[in-house]
Amino acid sequence: MTAPTIDVVALGSAIVDVLATAQDTDLEARGLVKGTMALVDAVRADELYAGMGPAVEASGGSAANTVAGVASFGGTAAFIGKVRDDQLGAVFAHDIRAVGVSFATEAATTGPATARCLVFVTEDAQRTMTTYLGAATGLGPGDVDTGVVAAARYTYLEGYLWDPPEAIEALRTAMSAASDAGRQVALSLSDPFCVDRHRKDFLGLVDDHVDVLFANEVEIMSLFEVSSLPEAIDEVQRRGRCGLAAITLGALGSTIVTPDATIDCPASPVEHVVDTTGAGDLYAAGFLHGLASGAGLMRCAELGSLAAAEVISHLGARPQVALATLL
Amino acid sequence: MTAPTIDVVALGSAIVDVLATAQDTDLEARGLVKGTMALVDAVRADELYAGMGPAVEASGGSAANTVAGVASFGGTAAFIGKVRDDQLGAVFAHDIRAVGVSFATEAATTGPATARCLVFVTEDAQRTMTTYLGAATGLGPGDVDTGVVAAARYTYLEGYLWDPPEAIEALRTAMSAASDAGRQVALSLSDPFCVDRHRKDFLGLVDDHVDVLFANEVEIMSLFEVSSLPEAIDEVQRRGRCGLAAITLGALGSTIVTPDATIDCPASPVEHVVDTTGAGDLYAAGFLHGLASGAGLMRCAELGSLAAAEVISHLGARPQVALATLL
Repeated sequence: MTAPTIDVVALGSAIVDVLATAQDTDLEARGLVKGTMALVDAVRADELYAGMGPAVEASGGSAANTVAGVASFGGTAAFIGKVRDDQLGAVFAHDIRAVGVSFATEAATTGPATARCLVFVTEDAQRTMTTYLGAATGLGPGDVDTGVVAAARYTYLEGYLWDPPEAIEALRTAMSAASDAGRQVALSLSDPFCVDRHRKDFLGLVDDHVDVLFANEVEIMSLFEVSSLPEAIDEVQRRGRCGLAAITLGALGSTIVTPDATIDCPASPVEHVVDTTGAGDLYAAGFLHGLASGAGLMRCAELGSLAAAEVISHLGARPQVALATLL
Repeated sequence: MTAPTIDVVALGSAIVDVLATAQDTDLEARGLVKGTMALVDAVRADELYAGMGPAVEASGGSAANTVAGVASFGGTAAFIGKVRDDQLGAVFAHDIRAVGVSFATEAATTGPATARCLVFVTEDAQRTMTTYLGAATGLGPGDVDTGVVAAARYTYLEGYLWDPPEAIEALRTAMSAASDAGRQVALSLSDPFCVDRHRKDFLGLVDDHVDVLFANEVEIMSLFEVSSLPEAIDEVQRRGRCGLAAITLGALGSTIVTPDATIDCPASPVEHVVDTTGAGDLYAAGFLHGLASGAGLMRCAELGSLAAAEVISHLGARPQVALATLL
């Protein structure tokens, strides 16, 4: 087994976020559930966009945000995901490469446009998302560079991507390549609705393939269909579901679960929380950067909290300063 | 003469800004002059973008920012400018309409892409811009809805647009329509390089067509080729160049020049200046909103300072809160 040359390779949806402020009543009027992500088709996306306030565009995508964070910490990272050869696709490719992430997936030359996520940010800094996946669903097993996966210490999978059949195949191809090369697989549960749709598959992955699991409190309770965090932690530990789970708890920080211990880490202080978009993604970035650097688990969680604190202090899901400068 | 139904109609470049942080050394390496705007062709724009850091996209365009500000204060505003029927064109159209500005100029269906302005924001919050005008240069006299101009109290012209021959014709068409309807014309000098290129034309406009002139210190001194602000003020006053000039002075606020007086207004306090992109545009917004509401000149300048203060406190050239809520 050769030494890994990449810290983290991520597979995810290649998305440009469209962020605007909104009122709670706007969410209600549109039938949106605060704090969640809903998939929409092109017609519904256009309809929602037409009623949205003035917006800014910023590259996003959950797993893409995570590897952007890893690179921002100074780690080596790669991303596999699909855009269309359109203006927003060029924006996505530019931004992820500009932060130092290697991104070589070919853009689709036909078919739907680059994915967009309409992010409604309410005054409580909560984000409510509607995603038109567009070209992102075109990711297939043929797009997975198994050489890159085999060279990466961690292969990070976005639960959100577990929807289009071709993309599921791509994720399975990556997991096999990682496993064959003796590397670790990390999974983010992404969203409670996402967990609801794919509970059986996700449980199977957690039992058999996942070394590091990322989730928030609601997602992990939903996965195991339990009603409290301690019960969810029991599930992870007693049934040997996976080696390591990092559970984010918003302002309360995070809890790291190993087979025989739990470690609590506080959140990093933030003067003014503006927009929580990307908080979980950046927590995963810091945590994985820590793991890849050989840091202890408490330090990994601290790095996660640090990165999350930066990203929630401004609009948008990617760091606005080089995270390495915060160390 | 019927009563105006619109406060301000603006003619300008329809641009999407691409904003990224940069170092002074980045500007030097690219031969860019800090604080100015340079026009670039598509090849040079691509080259500059490729070397730019991770960016965010936000609708911009100087005069477009101004009418967005007027609408954000609760005024009625319209915009005339050209985009292409591409993704960034849709972004521009969405954002200006979403803030309440009427925008009916038809998008070009052929020709160059929607205009982009690469904005390099340095740590001193200064912005340095390179603009690819693309579809914006396609604005012609046929795009000017003279009914809208005749209905507007103020027709606001962006000096930047005084480059493509067709656009100059469009501006002249609008000035005639405003004059025929007995309305006022306002002009922004936009940029020192812009003044250098068009000094003779701009002097002619100021002498014969402009009722309200907006400029910063450097621009107004360049226009009259004098080396101090008092000399420039003398030019405005002694030679009866135009009825009213508002000269912005950065952190020192602004000076209003009438035929027989000058009025100094301090800048509004800003806790942390992040990005000065749009400061002059939003000053003009507040000032024109004041004039259109029948406010006194000191109050007009205060409204300008208030709007400028909001826009320099964050990245991007449009207000992030409804300016009306700041009153």
